[in-house]
Parts: sequence; structure tokens; C-alpha cells
Amino acid sequence: MSSISYVNGRYVPHRDASVHIEDRGFQFADAVYEVIAVQHGRLVDGDGHFDRLDRSLGELSIPEPMSRAALKLVIRELLRQNRITFGALYIQVSRGQAPRDFSFPQNVQPTLVMTTKRLKPFDFERTAQGVSVITIQDIRWKRCDIKTVSLLAGAMGKTEAMSKGAFEAWQVDADGNVTEGTSSNAWIVTKAGELVTRHTDSAILGGITRQTVLQLAAKDGLNYVERPFSVAEAKAATEAFTTSTTAFIRPVVKIDEQSVGEGKPGPFVLKLLKLYGQHIENHK
Amino acid sequence: MSSISYVNGRYVPHRDASVHIEDRGFQFADAVYEVIAVQHGRLVDGDGHFDRLDRSLGELSIPEPMSRAALKLVIRELLRQNRITFGALYIQVSRGQAPRDFSFPQNVQPTLVMTTKRLKPFDFERTAQGVSVITIQDIRWKRCDIKTVSLLAGAMGKTEAMSKGAFEAWQVDADGNVTEGTSSNAWIVTKAGELVTRHTDSAILGGITRQTVLQLAAKDGLNYVERPFSVAEAKAATEAFTTSTTAFIRPVVKIDEQSVGEGKPGPFVLKLLKLYGQHIENHK
Repeated sequence: MSSISYVNGRYVPHRDASVHIEDRGFQFADAVYEVIAVQHGRLVDGDGHFDRLDRSLGELSIPEPMSRAALKLVIRELLRQNRITFGALYIQVSRGQAPRDFSFPQNVQPTLVMTTKRLKPFDFERTAQGVSVITIQDIRWKRCDIKTVSLLAGAMGKTEAMSKGAFEAWQVDADGNVTEGTSSNAWIVTKAGELVTRHTDSAILGGITRQTVLQLAAKDGLNYVERPFSVAEAKAATEAFTTSTTAFIRPVVKIDEQSVGEGKPGPFVLKLLKLYGQHIENHK
Repeated sequence: MSSISYVNGRYVPHRDASVHIEDRGFQFADAVYEVIAVQHGRLVDGDGHFDRLDRSLGELSIPEPMSRAALKLVIRELLRQNRITFGALYIQVSRGQAPRDFSFPQNVQPTLVMTTKRLKPFDFERTAQGVSVITIQDIRWKRCDIKTVSLLAGAMGKTEAMSKGAFEAWQVDADGNVTEGTSSNAWIVTKAGELVTRHTDSAILGGITRQTVLQLAAKDGLNYVERPFSVAEAKAATEAFTTSTTAFIRPVVKIDEQSVGEGKPGPFVLKLLKLYGQHIENHK
């Protein structure tokens, strides 16, 4: 973690960065967030993230803490103070501080918190390494389309994945279909060569990297469809992968200890990863 | 809100009471809590709440921040400093502060926060006033048995209830059965004179007041059963009520604008309320 964070109008040493104990983000998970990758000192798909942040706030009737133009200025200054050229920006907006009561308080100033962290630059070879995932029951609430900090189910799932040596846990709904990972979207490539990822509705978050990959696939004339797919279908797929802001595109070579396809990153995902690398370079 | 709060070993002016922005309670809803009523300077059903707190922590593998004996001493001191004779104590334990990452961090000191507030003493006449509830879809996660701060769905529901002039929102599952209120348990009395409240499992929180009321009903030889009941059954009931720590027992006289029974508090709930009042007095 870098040394300067932003909290409600102030750039503060990270160790001193705090919010009140009656901030609704702390007491009610009444807050939303975004994580944005930084490459070459610039935000990757920044407007996609800002649009989604606005939508999350709107769904919860939390006012925007500042205009997008002002937010961009603050972000630029925070990245500058922390000398972040490659890394990630974390933005959290909570409804604000109010005496504890379930119902939304009126006329409260939202809390805006931002942190940064330094990460290695996007690297094709490193990202192209295959990872394994496990499948778990999706126990989350019914509004996963809002990017809230109500992340305990995801934290539990990711902890279980890590304990089993896996990179991620794919969550499975009551119908046996994969919804998404705990902090990533899930994809497969069928034997027929079709790229599949679940359609967006209130059961999953509309990932920004997901959206970018769909655009890159369309532009390149790849065959894709947005629909549910089962765990069995995923295990029978020729390729699988995950997408997220900071992990980019990761080939999935094992699901529940079972090899996917030939058990190594396949041509489809490597092609998408290459296109994604170009997409990042275009941001320079 | 009283003027002194407790945060991680320190009694601090409430206005200065804060937690770090990377506290997992703020970033992941990775925290549990209890609210305990204070009557005549003593905790009502304190051990029931402490047992439940221990269970919540255990389910999430969060270590207890201190022994129960030590916790009781801190609570006594906090109530003394705030001169609370009648009111409520709020206890929140989060997993603690750690660099943001979904999976549970290891070797982290839990965050312990406590606040108090003053309330009017339990008053039979005031509590016996009937309230109305609305019904809403239960959109929460599948581990409502753990008392976590993942309360956004409840906050949304309570806000909707308030906007419609109702006291509470009863949440309804996919089968059309009432699970519970956003911060209370739901009860009905059938035409056959049977007291009904939903059985406990992972779909609802095992309310401490719920448990006390069941004990009082058993002791008094009242006929009761723990099972699901539908919205239709609730609307056709002769009586209905809610139970919670700070609202105690509240007669419900309207569900979705439809009168329950004779549209006023009935003999069954008034009897339970009287027994509950005696239960509180026995704590003196």
C-alpha cells in the first residue's frame, strides 16, 4: 500500500486514514466501490468504471460525492503523490456517517475514500500462466449487479479457494450454472469454438474487463454468446478463463482438480490476452 | 448517541471514534455485531447475546477480541461513563485491519467497537401500540443466521417500509413464506389460537427476544410452533407481532395496508408483552 490515501477531501498518510465508526460503510455495508487498473500512469477503461460507479450509487440513492471531472483531478493528484505508474486505484463511496439506524439517513454527505497500490506492469507471459479454480455454492444476495462492499460471501469463497491452492472460486447457482468468480467473471470456450460468458442481470456484476473482452472479441470476429453455462459444461470445455480488473485475463486450466481441455492455456484465451495487451498499450 | 465510545482498548469521545479505512468491516462487511437492551442499568438477556456473538465469530473464524469476563467489565465501564440506565449497547467486532484482499488475512487483531445510546425505559402502554408492516422480497444472502454487518438489503427494506409509513418490512422468500423483518422476527397467531414463528436455519437470524418469547410462551403453557408461514396466512391471522432487542414486542395491526384480525393489538400479544415486561423487571 502506498503512503498517501484520500479521505473526504484530504490527502492523508495511509496509516492515519480513517472513517468514523458510525460510517454506514462500516455498520451496514452501505457503500460501493471500484478498482481501476493503472498502466503507464493512466486508468485502464476509466470511463467504464466511472459509469458503473455512478450506476451503483444511483441504485442505492447515494449522491455522487463530486463531479466526474473533479474526481479525475483528485485521482491524478493521488497517483502523482504516490508515484503510481503501474498499479491499481481503489475508490469507495459510502452513504456517509449517521447515527445508527437501518433506514437511509437524509442529507448526509457521502464518504469518499481512495487508496492506491503499486503493481508490476501487465506482462503477457506472467498473465498467460494457467490457474486453477474451485466451484462453490453461490450464497450471495440478489443484487450482485451493484458493486457494493457487501463482500463477505466473496471473501469466504476466495479464502476457501486459497486454502485449496486455487486462484479463484466460481460460484454456482441453484440451477447448477456458474454465475461468476468471487472477484472475476467466468468464461469458457466450447468444443464448437464458441466463447461463452454468463449474461448480465442482477445475479452477477457487469465486469469492465468482461465488457472490454466482449468488445475485443467482436472486433476480431470471434464467435461469442452471453448465456448461462453449467459446471459440467465448463469441465467439458476446451478452454476456460477469468477476467478482472487487476488479474486481467487468466487462463483456467483446472476446475475442481479436473483439467480443462489439454490442461494448459489454449489458443483462444492467448489470443484474447494478446488483444487485451494491445488494448492496454493503446492507453499509453 | 452518548459521548464516549469504545474502540480497540480505548474510551474515546464519540466524535473522534474511528477505524482505519482498510478495516475489513468497512471494505468487506467482514464483521459481526450485537445490540443489547439496557434496563435498570443491566443487560437484558446478556448471555444470550454473548453466546450468539461467539457463534457469529466462530462461523467466520474471527477470533474473540477478549474474554467474555473482560468484555463485561469494559461494557460496565462504558455504561458507567455514559450514565446509561435505560438504553442500548452496540457491539461490533470486525476481522481487523489488513491490506485489501478478498481472502481472510492471518494473524490480524480483531477490531472491537462499542457505542451506547440512551432510550426511554420499557413501557407497556407505549410498546403495546400497534404498528403496520409491509412485505417485500427477501433478497438477502444465504447465511442470515450469522449476525453480520452485511445489512444493506435490510437497510433498503427498512427504508421502503418507512417511506410507506410502516414500522417494518417483512421479507418473503421464493416460496411465498415470511422469513423475518429487516431487524426483527415475525410472528402470527392463527385462528386456531396457535402462536407461529419461523423455525431457525440459515435463512433467518435466531433472535434473542424471539428465544425469550418462546421460553415465556412455553412457561405459560401457550400453544406454539416454529414453522414457515405464508403472507396469505399472516393476513388471515387473528394477531401478528414482531420481536427485537430494542423494540421488544410490537403488535402488528396491518400487513400491506390490510388489517390483521380486528385491526388492534389482541389478547395473545398483550399477554406476551406483559410476560416480557415481567422478564425485564426480573433483571433488576
